[in-house]
Amino acid sequence: MVSSLIQRVDRNKKVTVEAPATVANMVCGFDILGFAVDAPFDIMSIRFSHSRGITIIHEDDFQMPLEPEKNVAGAALLAMLEELPDFGCGLELHINKQIMPGSGVGSSAASAAGAVFAANQLLQCPFEKNDLIRFAMHGEKLASGVKHADNIAPCIYGGVTLIRSIFPLDVIPLSTPPLFVTIVHPQIEVRTADARSILKQHVLLKDAIKQWGNIAGLVAGLLNKDYELIGRSLEDVLIEPVRSILIPGFHEVKENAKRVGALGGGISGSGPSIFMLSTSQSIAELVEIEMKNIFTRIQLPFHTYVTQINHTGIRIIDN
Amino acid sequence: MVSSLIQRVDRNKKVTVEAPATVANMVCGFDILGFAVDAPFDIMSIRFSHSRGITIIHEDDFQMPLEPEKNVAGAALLAMLEELPDFGCGLELHINKQIMPGSGVGSSAASAAGAVFAANQLLQCPFEKNDLIRFAMHGEKLASGVKHADNIAPCIYGGVTLIRSIFPLDVIPLSTPPLFVTIVHPQIEVRTADARSILKQHVLLKDAIKQWGNIAGLVAGLLNKDYELIGRSLEDVLIEPVRSILIPGFHEVKENAKRVGALGGGISGSGPSIFMLSTSQSIAELVEIEMKNIFTRIQLPFHTYVTQINHTGIRIIDN
Repeated sequence: MVSSLIQRVDRNKKVTVEAPATVANMVCGFDILGFAVDAPFDIMSIRFSHSRGITIIHEDDFQMPLEPEKNVAGAALLAMLEELPDFGCGLELHINKQIMPGSGVGSSAASAAGAVFAANQLLQCPFEKNDLIRFAMHGEKLASGVKHADNIAPCIYGGVTLIRSIFPLDVIPLSTPPLFVTIVHPQIEVRTADARSILKQHVLLKDAIKQWGNIAGLVAGLLNKDYELIGRSLEDVLIEPVRSILIPGFHEVKENAKRVGALGGGISGSGPSIFMLSTSQSIAELVEIEMKNIFTRIQLPFHTYVTQINHTGIRIIDN
Repeated sequence: MVSSLIQRVDRNKKVTVEAPATVANMVCGFDILGFAVDAPFDIMSIRFSHSRGITIIHEDDFQMPLEPEKNVAGAALLAMLEELPDFGCGLELHINKQIMPGSGVGSSAASAAGAVFAANQLLQCPFEKNDLIRFAMHGEKLASGVKHADNIAPCIYGGVTLIRSIFPLDVIPLSTPPLFVTIVHPQIEVRTADARSILKQHVLLKDAIKQWGNIAGLVAGLLNKDYELIGRSLEDVLIEPVRSILIPGFHEVKENAKRVGALGGGISGSGPSIFMLSTSQSIAELVEIEMKNIFTRIQLPFHTYVTQINHTGIRIIDN
């Protein structure tokens, strides 16, 4: 069926998508909860090419590798093509990255998920969303050494997604009330592998119980649109105390953000970005002012974003 | 205010309540999720007495201690009276226990919660539900050595309740789709203290992550009325593997119950009762047949109940 679809496609067709940044490890939801934001996002176009294989053209200055097997978008596309044995032509992918690699807001996930989402559209959708997640996880594995879906799933589905299980894949989109997001990206390097290696393999059962009480509270707060419960549940007693030592200014950002009205927040992914959730644009902007003041004072270069939870996921802007 | 209320009460008034059995440690929701069932339940009556202090009369054959400070209902009432310094008379409590002590379906919680709920009604409700939980936890402490609320909270609120935190107390009632419950109580003794002592103090982070993925899935499944998600999430990788060795027939009950259509289930509280959840009365009855066959074959005396989640909690039957 897939091969017959490919016979019918228009070889001049081009698909362009916006693939949004995402926040994984949503406070207490380490490894299972992530969400997409409206900005920043990568822009990517894909079309059939005359030469076989995958050709990658980066229209940004991030010096990403262009060999498909070394590029996260390429690795994801290769995984997809493995399940299309009769695919007889090549693909040309143009990537304009706007999400800075290493910032902790799902830069690799946006490239990997955006590439397979756009390619699936070009091929007239032989695959379902969960197939695309499987393919894109090959990009994540290339980037961090581990297949994980808590950036890819929200990038593809939009909104807040629960990844109950990776093997087998079980993704549950969670409805939420309006949530505004302020992100600060201090320009320091926190390698995902380092952030993972400092975690303890064992945790106290009593701390784990506290964590899963908060996770249950956060899920209930989101689904019941209960901002106060969301705020009370945004507490991570296991991961944040260990990882936050890698991020200068972390505790001050969190404290000041809550003082000006934020519900709470934490480390985005494995850092160094920090995110805070608020119930309004105006509070989210007050949080941004606090973030700017703190990183200006400690003399670290930084970027900030005031955005919202993105409920669409990857968006087709030209088809 | 409280003392003036007491002046106005009718000294001939009597309040009678039914306090339902409850299932704590709802599979993956160890220490945080519990639910009430329609049957069995304790019946309790309270009225003002001529003599000072608390008088307890047991109308059952369980040989419970009658001194208030040694009786779970008495301990809960004493905690309540401590916050009523101007209370100038006595209370007489009649208890007809139908929930067998030591069965693992919240027998002590029903006595403790029922007593303070009925007393509060008698006193024209000076206290809120969460106050009653605080008082009733003194009964749980007497029974098991630990203040916990995952039987008391569903007993008082009804339905499935999340106890996000005990100190400070944060109870969140969760709406659910209709759920039928089959319970088997094999007549063996599993002491709560023993069941607690065999748990490991430390757990693997990767197992804890699996557990909180399931908890998040279970909460989302309940709130979204998604039976399949509830079924997939009813998995406990941490507590059940350790505690189930104390309960003969446990794995066979679970396997056979799922084979005849149950969503899943696990150990009720710290055992020895086992509960299974189903989407219909007819499946719940098939599960009961399996339970009866298994415990008849392994020659352990047992009781079974086919019931539903109770959405009312403690019910006033005479006021």
